[in-house]
Amino acid sequence: MPVLLAPEQAPSLTNLLASINTAGLNIFIAGEPQPNPVIRGIGSLQQAGPDEISFLSNPRLKNELDACKAAAVIVPPEIFETLGPRNLPYALVRCNQPYLLYALLAQWFDQHRVNQLPAGIHPTAVIHETAQIDDNVHIGPHCVIEANVHIGQGTRLGPGCVVGEKTVLGRNCLLHARVVIYHGVQVGSRAILHSGCVIGADGFGFAPDPSNQGGWAKIAQLGGVHIGDDVEIGANTTIDRGALDDTVIGNGVKLDNQIMIAHNVRIGDHTAMAACVGVAGSTVIGKRCTIGGASMLSGHITLGDDVHVSGGTAITSNVSQPGRYTGVYPFAEHVQWQKNAAVVSQLSQLRRRLRACEKNQD
Amino acid sequence: MPVLLAPEQAPSLTNLLASINTAGLNIFIAGEPQPNPVIRGIGSLQQAGPDEISFLSNPRLKNELDACKAAAVIVPPEIFETLGPRNLPYALVRCNQPYLLYALLAQWFDQHRVNQLPAGIHPTAVIHETAQIDDNVHIGPHCVIEANVHIGQGTRLGPGCVVGEKTVLGRNCLLHARVVIYHGVQVGSRAILHSGCVIGADGFGFAPDPSNQGGWAKIAQLGGVHIGDDVEIGANTTIDRGALDDTVIGNGVKLDNQIMIAHNVRIGDHTAMAACVGVAGSTVIGKRCTIGGASMLSGHITLGDDVHVSGGTAITSNVSQPGRYTGVYPFAEHVQWQKNAAVVSQLSQLRRRLRACEKNQD
Amino acid sequence: MPVLLAPEQAPSLTNLLASINTAGLNIFIAGEPQPNPVIRGIGSLQQAGPDEISFLSNPRLKNELDACKAAAVIVPPEIFETLGPRNLPYALVRCNQPYLLYALLAQWFDQHRVNQLPAGIHPTAVIHETAQIDDNVHIGPHCVIEANVHIGQGTRLGPGCVVGEKTVLGRNCLLHARVVIYHGVQVGSRAILHSGCVIGADGFGFAPDPSNQGGWAKIAQLGGVHIGDDVEIGANTTIDRGALDDTVIGNGVKLDNQIMIAHNVRIGDHTAMAACVGVAGSTVIGKRCTIGGASMLSGHITLGDDVHVSGGTAITSNVSQPGRYTGVYPFAEHVQWQKNAAVVSQLSQLRRRLRACEKNQD
Repeated sequence: MPVLLAPEQAPSLTNLLASINTAGLNIFIAGEPQPNPVIRGIGSLQQAGPDEISFLSNPRLKNELDACKAAAVIVPPEIFETLGPRNLPYALVRCNQPYLLYALLAQWFDQHRVNQLPAGIHPTAVIHETAQIDDNVHIGPHCVIEANVHIGQGTRLGPGCVVGEKTVLGRNCLLHARVVIYHGVQVGSRAILHSGCVIGADGFGFAPDPSNQGGWAKIAQLGGVHIGDDVEIGANTTIDRGALDDTVIGNGVKLDNQIMIAHNVRIGDHTAMAACVGVAGSTVIGKRCTIGGASMLSGHITLGDDVHVSGGTAITSNVSQPGRYTGVYPFAEHVQWQKNAAVVSQLSQLRRRLRACEKNQD
Repeated sequence: MPVLLAPEQAPSLTNLLASINTAGLNIFIAGEPQPNPVIRGIGSLQQAGPDEISFLSNPRLKNELDACKAAAVIVPPEIFETLGPRNLPYALVRCNQPYLLYALLAQWFDQHRVNQLPAGIHPTAVIHETAQIDDNVHIGPHCVIEANVHIGQGTRLGPGCVVGEKTVLGRNCLLHARVVIYHGVQVGSRAILHSGCVIGADGFGFAPDPSNQGGWAKIAQLGGVHIGDDVEIGANTTIDRGALDDTVIGNGVKLDNQIMIAHNVRIGDHTAMAACVGVAGSTVIGKRCTIGGASMLSGHITLGDDVHVSGGTAITSNVSQPGRYTGVYPFAEHVQWQKNAAVVSQLSQLRRRLRACEKNQD
Repeated sequence: MPVLLAPEQAPSLTNLLASINTAGLNIFIAGEPQPNPVIRGIGSLQQAGPDEISFLSNPRLKNELDACKAAAVIVPPEIFETLGPRNLPYALVRCNQPYLLYALLAQWFDQHRVNQLPAGIHPTAVIHETAQIDDNVHIGPHCVIEANVHIGQGTRLGPGCVVGEKTVLGRNCLLHARVVIYHGVQVGSRAILHSGCVIGADGFGFAPDPSNQGGWAKIAQLGGVHIGDDVEIGANTTIDRGALDDTVIGNGVKLDNQIMIAHNVRIGDHTAMAACVGVAGSTVIGKRCTIGGASMLSGHITLGDDVHVSGGTAITSNVSQPGRYTGVYPFAEHVQWQKNAAVVSQLSQLRRRLRACEKNQD
């Protein structure tokens, strides 16, 4: 069940919308019988109760409006025009971008339900004397801040975070519990880092060492990690430090959980990756790409801007043109799959036989 | 090498079996020359020594009984009947479910070899004054328990766990070292959570924000996570909180390591998933399903009850019928694979050419 | 940007090479105008500046030498012979194994830039009275060392590590922040364990329990984990303990991030795995294998020595012959993929139709 503010803390619909930056969203409110209901939370069209606001972002779900019990519903202009005149059981909010307005409302409710971490350093945190901690920073219990770290104003660290030597965190970042950042990492402002993520571990580099039969000599990883502004990094995601130069994560990049970014990868601004993606070393990804969950990208390849990779796809060579790319073996009932998979291993032979058939017909 | 209790701590075979709930297992002991040996541990048929008990669960491995050096062997009734009369070097234990009896014995030995964590709160733990800690709870060093948490009777937390505001843990749970649970999560009784798992991090939700070229507005995740009773969650597995409603893990669900459960996924009772599985957002999985390792399930799909997915399979659409489903590209020697993979990219063309051949023959 | 030592700390080229074990590398220095430059760091051929040393390991990149601004460049003998006589802007270093020399130099610079963790136990660490801590060990803040642990000489633990009961760590290991090792694990000497890795969590074992409809009985995992010497384990990688016997990681094995090694897997010496690989239970991998990123290996199979698996490949059966093995569905533009993927599901039917065509031609 979603959060519900206590009635005395909840705003009216007009006050709620007034407290959000709705510039450009073309907001207009109509509706009967409650033109200005109190809004205690947000719900989906099917689940929202009489204290909640809901939204219709996909016009194809228009039918769900009929049974909706919300106090208010956000709809796009084309829906607003067809519904506006009718006598509706909820307040109707017109908006050019209902999904974006939902995002902004959810942020508002989140900020008003969770106790904000107060500024201050918990007495169990271990802070090196050379670390520079700016104003209004929260450092939770059992954190460890090493030498020459700089933590920008307004940044908050949950319990058990570790920040290595000479690492720099920008302003107003939020590190959830137990984030680890190694030494020499740069993180921009307003980053959100989830629990268990590890930034700056050694890239995976070894040179064959013939003096040691079948053995390997470790290539120390001398680069760092450079993370732009407004980046979010999911739980247990790992971003390795570069071998010589830095691994680079652009501004506004969003990474889901359990993603692996290898050394010297470069990710362009505003690219988003769903969970369980692996990106091998030195690969370069453009701006505004989306990478579906459980995809893998080979090393030393380049993806241009606006490339969209479907989930579960292995990208093994350069992709220069914008567009959507897919490569997933279709699943089937096991017995059926066995028959088809067997033929996959004979495909080149099959093609030869087809050519022979064609020749015979000439 | 498996654990071995010291001889003075080890039980006799009959005492061991008497200390376990064997109701319905149809246990009967026969055998020579040692009708009641001392049992110090458990071993496989090949590895078990003269102080250990072993088991045969797969009748096809019957030949391994000949060389078995165990003190006692558990066998199913059909094997017991063929062997029982013979003069065997080990005690023979008949059981309807040898594998289940092995599980129960292993639990017994595990409980008798590991020092149980004593009740009590380590002085380095940081516990909010509003947290409610029931009787007989162990809280290890450097744990952090936030405001309004409730921890049920008999629950044990290893070192470095973090439990967020308003989260509720049931009775007799075991959290190994360094588990993180965010705020507002419900965990039932008898859960086992392994190190590094993260429960309740934000689901991955962003709305395109045209005011910010190519940028994203974060959709705050207002739902929680609801985990039933008797759930086990593996090391470094992540389960995200819901966007509006909760992510739901049913009773008796077993999740291996490094699994990713996205926001608003619902998993039915007794479903088990092997390691490295990813389940994308809002997908619903039925009861008693098994999901093989490294599989991925797309978002917004539904799997019915008793669906079994082979390892490495991408499930990209609804599966309503019980059964086994598979989709894995068969591997081959690289050179052979190159030939076949090239044809995969021409398959629809190949089919066209085959049709042409067929037409020519009409 | 890579590390640069301060000029007063940086060695001359000859001193640098003299401080490294270059036995067998056939080192020889030539070059003008600076026969013995000061070397402050390492850079790639394109990026290295006039204070840095660079290297050419792939003779095909020979053209990049022309614009190289480094102070010194390491080249293989065949390149050295063609360039040696010329008047070059950098010192030229001949070496049989330029990539290996680069690795050794990178190690040298890494050791000289990072403050070594001093011996000593941080006062916030919680050490059980029965733990045996040898000389010259560093234990960081908030570490927890349980009963009867043995930590070998020179081993260093970063902040927040947890080492479970009776676990043994060899000499000169480096555990980065927040490594968790469960009870009863053996780790050899010179291991490097990265943050978030979890060694010794329970293997995933459950017996169907008919007394509990659709339910499971946990199989307690009584084995341990045995890790050889010179092993590196990446961030958030998990290695589970064995069911009865140990999970075994050979000497010199290198595991990247987010790898999952299930119970009772055995990995031969010097095998290396890239990130996101999953190895299911009881699988045996030979020596000197390389496993590409995001590959998965089924359980209960055997790979021989010198098997090389391409990234993204599912190995589902035994591989006895050395060689390279691949199995990845080729990606394509989505619309093109849809056409081909549809045919994949009809392959056995397609083969039948082809046979019919062939028969008609007979």
